[in-house]
Amino acid sequence: MTTTTIIGYMAAFGTTVSFLPQAIKTIQTKNTSGISLYMYALFTAGTLFWLIYGLMSGSLPVAIANVITFVFASIILVYKIIYK
Amino acid sequence: MTTTTIIGYMAAFGTTVSFLPQAIKTIQTKNTSGISLYMYALFTAGTLFWLIYGLMSGSLPVAIANVITFVFASIILVYKIIYK
Repeated sequence: MTTTTIIGYMAAFGTTVSFLPQAIKTIQTKNTSGISLYMYALFTAGTLFWLIYGLMSGSLPVAIANVITFVFASIILVYKIIYK
Repeated sequence: MTTTTIIGYMAAFGTTVSFLPQAIKTIQTKNTSGISLYMYALFTAGTLFWLIYGLMSGSLPVAIANVITFVFASIILVYKIIYK
């Protein structure tokens, strides 16, 4: 595995896993006052498009990473809508 | 341009631009109580690795998209650290 590929996996890990602590915090506290609705609406749509792009272009890592991020981002978005 | 490429650009646009409304909201309200420090620490590091990956692999769109996201995510992270 090349250094570039390793850095790519580290990047994918960081930006994917980062939404887990936010999702946990939001579920536990239900405090969404500082969270932007527009961010999560746009971001959730973006990850859905990444998922479709990953499947259409045959890039399984892109598809898998974005399924995970989509789930976390959707949870945060739903909490933001419910607990305004 | 193929449908797959167009979906890829829509995906990149959504996940990049989404951090702008969050950065604006955080700057204006200074309300970071609902924002996860761990998320932004991990996410900012992740975008930095994406930027390095983009430069090393010669993918300019990946590099450019992640410079933008890195700036927005860094602003949110700094505000989260200052206004705990």
